[in-house]
Amino acid sequence: MLRTHTCGELNMQFVGRIVTLCGWIQRIREMGGMTFIDLRDRYGITQLVFNIQGQPDLFAKVKELGREFVISASGKVAERSSKNTKIPTGDIEILVDSLKILNTSKIPPFTIEDNTDGGEELRMKYRYLDLRRTVVRKNLELRHRMAILTRNYMNEQGFIEIETPVLIKSTPEGARDFVVPSRMNPGQFYALPQSPQTFKQLLMVAGFDRYFQIVKCFRDEDLRADRQPEFSQIDCEMSFVTQDDILATFEGLARYLFLEVKGLDPGEFPIIEYDSVMRDYGSDKPDIRFGMKLIELNETIKGKGFKVFDDAELVVGINAIGCAEYSRKQIDELTEWVKRPQVGASGLVYIRYGTDGTLKSSIDKFYSPDELKVLAGKFSVVPGDLMLIMAGKKEKTQTALGTLRIEMGKRLGLIDPTVFKPLWIVNFPLLEWDEVSKRFYAKHHPFTSPVPQDISLLDTNPGAIRANAYDLVINGVEIGGGSIRIHNCDLQKKMFQVLGFTDELAQEQFGFLMNAFEYGAPPHGGIAFGFDRWCTIFGGGESIRDFMAFPKNNSGRDVMIDTPSSISEEQLKELNIKLTS
Amino acid sequence: MLRTHTCGELNMQFVGRIVTLCGWIQRIREMGGMTFIDLRDRYGITQLVFNIQGQPDLFAKVKELGREFVISASGKVAERSSKNTKIPTGDIEILVDSLKILNTSKIPPFTIEDNTDGGEELRMKYRYLDLRRTVVRKNLELRHRMAILTRNYMNEQGFIEIETPVLIKSTPEGARDFVVPSRMNPGQFYALPQSPQTFKQLLMVAGFDRYFQIVKCFRDEDLRADRQPEFSQIDCEMSFVTQDDILATFEGLARYLFLEVKGLDPGEFPIIEYDSVMRDYGSDKPDIRFGMKLIELNETIKGKGFKVFDDAELVVGINAIGCAEYSRKQIDELTEWVKRPQVGASGLVYIRYGTDGTLKSSIDKFYSPDELKVLAGKFSVVPGDLMLIMAGKKEKTQTALGTLRIEMGKRLGLIDPTVFKPLWIVNFPLLEWDEVSKRFYAKHHPFTSPVPQDISLLDTNPGAIRANAYDLVINGVEIGGGSIRIHNCDLQKKMFQVLGFTDELAQEQFGFLMNAFEYGAPPHGGIAFGFDRWCTIFGGGESIRDFMAFPKNNSGRDVMIDTPSSISEEQLKELNIKLTS
Repeated sequence: MLRTHTCGELNMQFVGRIVTLCGWIQRIREMGGMTFIDLRDRYGITQLVFNIQGQPDLFAKVKELGREFVISASGKVAERSSKNTKIPTGDIEILVDSLKILNTSKIPPFTIEDNTDGGEELRMKYRYLDLRRTVVRKNLELRHRMAILTRNYMNEQGFIEIETPVLIKSTPEGARDFVVPSRMNPGQFYALPQSPQTFKQLLMVAGFDRYFQIVKCFRDEDLRADRQPEFSQIDCEMSFVTQDDILATFEGLARYLFLEVKGLDPGEFPIIEYDSVMRDYGSDKPDIRFGMKLIELNETIKGKGFKVFDDAELVVGINAIGCAEYSRKQIDELTEWVKRPQVGASGLVYIRYGTDGTLKSSIDKFYSPDELKVLAGKFSVVPGDLMLIMAGKKEKTQTALGTLRIEMGKRLGLIDPTVFKPLWIVNFPLLEWDEVSKRFYAKHHPFTSPVPQDISLLDTNPGAIRANAYDLVINGVEIGGGSIRIHNCDLQKKMFQVLGFTDELAQEQFGFLMNAFEYGAPPHGGIAFGFDRWCTIFGGGESIRDFMAFPKNNSGRDVMIDTPSSISEEQLKELNIKLTS
Repeated sequence: MLRTHTCGELNMQFVGRIVTLCGWIQRIREMGGMTFIDLRDRYGITQLVFNIQGQPDLFAKVKELGREFVISASGKVAERSSKNTKIPTGDIEILVDSLKILNTSKIPPFTIEDNTDGGEELRMKYRYLDLRRTVVRKNLELRHRMAILTRNYMNEQGFIEIETPVLIKSTPEGARDFVVPSRMNPGQFYALPQSPQTFKQLLMVAGFDRYFQIVKCFRDEDLRADRQPEFSQIDCEMSFVTQDDILATFEGLARYLFLEVKGLDPGEFPIIEYDSVMRDYGSDKPDIRFGMKLIELNETIKGKGFKVFDDAELVVGINAIGCAEYSRKQIDELTEWVKRPQVGASGLVYIRYGTDGTLKSSIDKFYSPDELKVLAGKFSVVPGDLMLIMAGKKEKTQTALGTLRIEMGKRLGLIDPTVFKPLWIVNFPLLEWDEVSKRFYAKHHPFTSPVPQDISLLDTNPGAIRANAYDLVINGVEIGGGSIRIHNCDLQKKMFQVLGFTDELAQEQFGFLMNAFEYGAPPHGGIAFGFDRWCTIFGGGESIRDFMAFPKNNSGRDVMIDTPSSISEEQLKELNIKLTS
């Protein structure tokens, strides 16, 4: 090794020892014939001291140094006169008597500090410099730790990690595939997996009993802040299990990670039905760190002549605690906020419960003070509160109000970032009707089994079928989801029919799976966790990008290596394709 | 869980307990009013007993069962009257009183036994059934174990696993890339990584100090038995190290895996120069489990008027111990064998040392008995041995004789499959001259640094430069290789020049890396191991396919899921490409 120690390990015990450190120059300070250098590596920072007295050659060399130069420095460990209690090595410094410049550095385009002056685009172009910042490095260290803890936990539970292929088959269901032209099979393509779903089911058919994998998955979707074209999943599957077994197993994993990584016990995870969370929180991934539950008002509020409410499938409100003092302008701003397409509400009605005990609303015309009082009773408000009400189609209105609930929670500071509230959501609808294509889509995927007692509805009322599926939600983020799968060939065929697949298409796309089901497929189920998201939540980050070493931007570009890029005519020719534009 | 226990855990301690097992039917035997079923799962086999007495309904159900049906069976654990000592559950059986058929099975197309009757193609088509065979399952269990041991070892050594991107940039150097058209960037393509080489170097520039990753890599090459379009690497990189440090670190990993997986201590790994192994074994991945070293004969054999030898750059032989009795026909067959293009020798000369002490050869015309005796002395032969000699261009002849050496080692039973002899090869040539394109190619890759004292040869004699590179070889298989990298921008530019890159092309393809080198790149080096191969060696297998869950065939097809396959016109259009054929 070019060093005897790292920049993070020396302390008073080493005083008097001759050591050699290697690292990057974080800072150079000159003070009365002395030069102090903070030398940085992955493990920490150590102060180097150069004394002009009797070391003219060395001191000349020090003059050449600049920020981010890579050096090797040898000398004696000494106790500092003025100690730095903020860092583990703050008690000591190195009295350098030998210095080697291992590499020079241009002046970096932004400062290598936790609070850098570099903008997003610049930091992405020089990602290798951005990654030198402690805050970014710690994100990847956390990710590594979460991965190794997960693997050891799963291994302890008897799961085997099995690598499934990356070059697979394009299927029309789900998101858009990335495809790979095959040179050896002209005109044909591989697809990159959106998930190893069918392979993990085949591994259950193969008798592997308990499978997991931390695996890259790919989706060619238009990108948003927390979407990336490639992302990682903790992908799991078990045989001979019911939903209870899966929930218990993976609550175990989650609790283990909470304890090891966050040092906290999240308690038992509540299991709540989809209908309940939609009703109470207007979201299938509710943040339950705060209350402000949705209050259904249909029975109380309808029939008073206000057409908007009378015609609505659902009238529902929340209590914005202590917001009675909101000005007209503030309420107008909120109304505009909920009318944006991202929220999609048609309007917002308010009832103010003044600190003087009076009730005032935007619907005073239709409701008497006594009627408003009855409404207020439904909300359990106290003077000073503000009731916010929406009306319209049931699910759409719940969702819009759920979005407002989160926004009000943030604005009112009700959300404690140090608190973690995981929960399971169960009994999702199996299918979603699409008005445009006039067909059902699988809400999860076509391999999810119905809740057993709902199977008979496949012929009569598919829209009412509940899925034997579950999501793990932490603080308003869906961390993972899964289901008990169909393992019966006939039921799987039926499901493809309901989803509008012809028998031929089903056979062409998923024939291998249905064939496999004819050779003794065991009952099985599984779950997949968004690993990037989980790391982001645990690391207290905003975007999954901050927890990936080399993320892509919103156009799917890696601006550092400048890809995607053009390829040669020769390559295109070998692949039997040409460009159309 | 649908079971209380697995099929691998019950023994005498459980006698009298009521249990429920789930699994696949391996075998059904009927014997005097009793039916015995071997029930199989990942963990083992347990015998179920059905008694016709008093259980007519149950017995009727048993009649429906067939091979590979999935069942759940409950009953009491009982001691067997005739025990099976070959399996851990052989002392007990289950007296079944309740049976549920969880799934039926068609008759499998081949037997689910270690020695199956299924051919390669059929087993690949029904890979999910092939994977049920214990021998295949054990391969994947071994792979899982090697992966988790590797990760924990690397973690202990302070390495961080960091996921590098799969969608990267196509580069012309090395093997052919798989490419992925970008929908969002029309006319542009990503490439799948042949290795994360540049990313791991950037991680060193970023200060991660110690990186590793078990990672999928991709090469669009024509396939052979132990090549697959996607394969896995244990990819590693370290900063502030010399070659010695890398060898010590990864010898540590290898020794740990030997101890944990194979239960044996391979001793210290010899470090041998490329020139030495070529000279002694005619191979840069020698199998040193047996001797039969190559003996150079130039000084002894030349100048006696035999033109073939006199004109040859190298005359070299091996001693095929105890083969003096080989018939003329056997020697002719060997001669034909070495003349095949796969070996490429121009001929084979023999000298027999008869058990009667006489020397006889195919070159008696040119060499007197005394001269033959001197030659025999070079080989240290004893009566009964057979000397086999080749001549020609140095490296080509060494390689051809090295191939014959392995073949003779096999034929003579000199290779013990239970013995493991790892070694390091160092000081490879840095560059290889290509006669066709009249340019140098990097033997390893363009980022490998020269041995420091050879750097000056870049201008004068590039072909003579030794690389600061190393391979780990076990039993004739190259398990891994790596190098100390170039970390200096100017030297890297120089290297690209020597390799015939224009400055523009170098900048276009690898500009990001050379730019990174300008911002304080530390000295660094690394290694990558072929994980599939390592598993195959440790598992005693023939082909890496046997250690992959879902391998592809020699045409790059997955015959089970039938991919690659055609994609829709709509997909092509979105990707801005069309087919040329």
